[in-house]
Amino acid sequence: MTEQERILQHTLQCIRPADEEAVRAARKYADSLAKPPGSLGQLEEIAAKLAGITGRIKNEIKKTRITVLAADNGVCSEGVSSAPQRVTAEQAVNMTRGITGMAALAAEFGCEVQVTDVGIATPYICDTIRNAKIRRGTGNLLRGRAMSREEVLSALCTGISLAEEAKRDGICALGVGEMGIGNTTSSSAVLAVLTGKPVRELTGRGGGLTDAAYERKRCVIEEALRFHHPDPADVIGVLGCVGGLDLAAMCGVFLGCAALRLPAVADGFISVTAALCAAYLAPAVRDVLFLSHVSAEPGYAAAREALGLPAYLLLDLRLGEGSGCPLAFQVLKAACAMMRNMATFEEARIDDRYLAEIRAQEERP
Amino acid sequence: MTEQERILQHTLQCIRPADEEAVRAARKYADSLAKPPGSLGQLEEIAAKLAGITGRIKNEIKKTRITVLAADNGVCSEGVSSAPQRVTAEQAVNMTRGITGMAALAAEFGCEVQVTDVGIATPYICDTIRNAKIRRGTGNLLRGRAMSREEVLSALCTGISLAEEAKRDGICALGVGEMGIGNTTSSSAVLAVLTGKPVRELTGRGGGLTDAAYERKRCVIEEALRFHHPDPADVIGVLGCVGGLDLAAMCGVFLGCAALRLPAVADGFISVTAALCAAYLAPAVRDVLFLSHVSAEPGYAAAREALGLPAYLLLDLRLGEGSGCPLAFQVLKAACAMMRNMATFEEARIDDRYLAEIRAQEERP
Repeated sequence: MTEQERILQHTLQCIRPADEEAVRAARKYADSLAKPPGSLGQLEEIAAKLAGITGRIKNEIKKTRITVLAADNGVCSEGVSSAPQRVTAEQAVNMTRGITGMAALAAEFGCEVQVTDVGIATPYICDTIRNAKIRRGTGNLLRGRAMSREEVLSALCTGISLAEEAKRDGICALGVGEMGIGNTTSSSAVLAVLTGKPVRELTGRGGGLTDAAYERKRCVIEEALRFHHPDPADVIGVLGCVGGLDLAAMCGVFLGCAALRLPAVADGFISVTAALCAAYLAPAVRDVLFLSHVSAEPGYAAAREALGLPAYLLLDLRLGEGSGCPLAFQVLKAACAMMRNMATFEEARIDDRYLAEIRAQEERP
Repeated sequence: MTEQERILQHTLQCIRPADEEAVRAARKYADSLAKPPGSLGQLEEIAAKLAGITGRIKNEIKKTRITVLAADNGVCSEGVSSAPQRVTAEQAVNMTRGITGMAALAAEFGCEVQVTDVGIATPYICDTIRNAKIRRGTGNLLRGRAMSREEVLSALCTGISLAEEAKRDGICALGVGEMGIGNTTSSSAVLAVLTGKPVRELTGRGGGLTDAAYERKRCVIEEALRFHHPDPADVIGVLGCVGGLDLAAMCGVFLGCAALRLPAVADGFISVTAALCAAYLAPAVRDVLFLSHVSAEPGYAAAREALGLPAYLLLDLRLGEGSGCPLAFQVLKAACAMMRNMATFEEARIDDRYLAEIRAQEERP
């Protein structure tokens, strides 16, 4: 067994389901708050879920971070993307400058942004991007494997170490984003294998493809699946055949978060696909996982359904990057504020004697 | 014409549609930002809408306020509510103490909370509730008019003055909430008249009714509508027959916001019903109106559909109070941050010569 296989195995062994006793206690406390039972809907669910992660009824989401995994995809040479490959490097750099969509929102809400290069193809100079490059983009999945099993394991371990770092840094919730031209193609391919659904249902126009390019994208994925015929039970094999370095590393982040009981937020289509990979490796990943927004990318619904989790924002976003995370963190904060700041029925009640006194005062001539 | 009729007429005359030139300029600028066009979905729509309100492409949501209208409903004596009437006064007081659901969330996000009594029935002592009491609760709408035309006009003018106050205070977005046991009954009744939809579709369990009480609630509304037979073209008449003091005052707030070009956030079922009343009086109210969340109350969908506006949060809330506003303000802030912080395609591009230099450096032995 290699060192990386050992790390993965250890991580998987550390993943435990939610603390059901804390979940029950949190639900009971939420029911004691002065409101019709269940009337704060998903905020009550989130509060209970956070309790199941931390073991505490009242929680606080102070420090938040979005960790972005950036990598290129060899399949781009098949013309499946509207943007040129160099945009991966450009936007990874721009994220560290705070000027991409996700970074603009992160700055507004005081979320940290961390960008890690696990496989950018285009050269760039930027000290603030972490270098964990495994290779310069994946192989073209239509012509061969996207990457070797060892490369998938490397990416998973990079992701796990990013979760560990977040935990050490006192991060309360970790959002998982990506940058990688062509990564909706690899995500659709992975998702088609894992869910068994037709490629047609899971494939969208990504950044904005023409009809012809969109048709080409679907054909590329279908042909690649016929060529590799990956075994859905072997997630690492699926990632190796038709996945991406970003997808694999993001999957590792989710596994690491689950092992360390760190709330994780999956964002757009690529992020939920990575989360689904993690949940296939360890079902209890779901217990630390929150979904930010209902993405407009067609495959998103299938991934969300397979995860069986709700998403909280309805904004028709389809930018990726982790752009829904900053607002999702505010939703988590709201759930915590409900538990911390609201009065119980007992505390909210105005005493009868007090009311009687008021009446007596008012009735005095 | 009375003074109140003059105020209402003046307010209606001041309501102008969006500044279409600013909307177009904002859309054009959003399209120039480094992202696939439209990929930030509703955030782009919000940014354009804010531009249409303020006339500026870049906006900022700094000070926010939730203004809560509290009033009782005579129809409570028919047993249509799960909570006793005194809860209106209790929770109005508790809002000013920061311990209700809405107030807990408002505190988390730094929103001001303002509570105005336009018709609380139960006596209370609380200096921090504004006294604009019109009467001690409405009449029982099953047995007679909820209130007179003059009382509706009074409530509308109170609402208009609250919008004016918010504008004077430098509020950037005003959320509109309510507290009033029994107000889902009056809202369902008003909505049934305005939309012509069956009461059955528009009536929910409010705070949590038993089957028998729920059936009773529907019968009460249906009987009241047969009794009053209000003219849907006369919104003030509808409010007088089967509305509430809170509904009427909230309607006034929306009218005032539209007249003063102040972004307004409608929240739950009662709030969107009030917003719909305002939009029936002046269709351009829609141009300053944002909906916070998709309420779980059954009538909400009909009101939202009639308004033709999107809601941004999917949290299954059904508490009322304005509890979705604090998070909705964060969504508006996100839209503004997108416009202020993101790079344009021009700014985001990494120069070709720069890339050539990197390549040259890397290729050096």
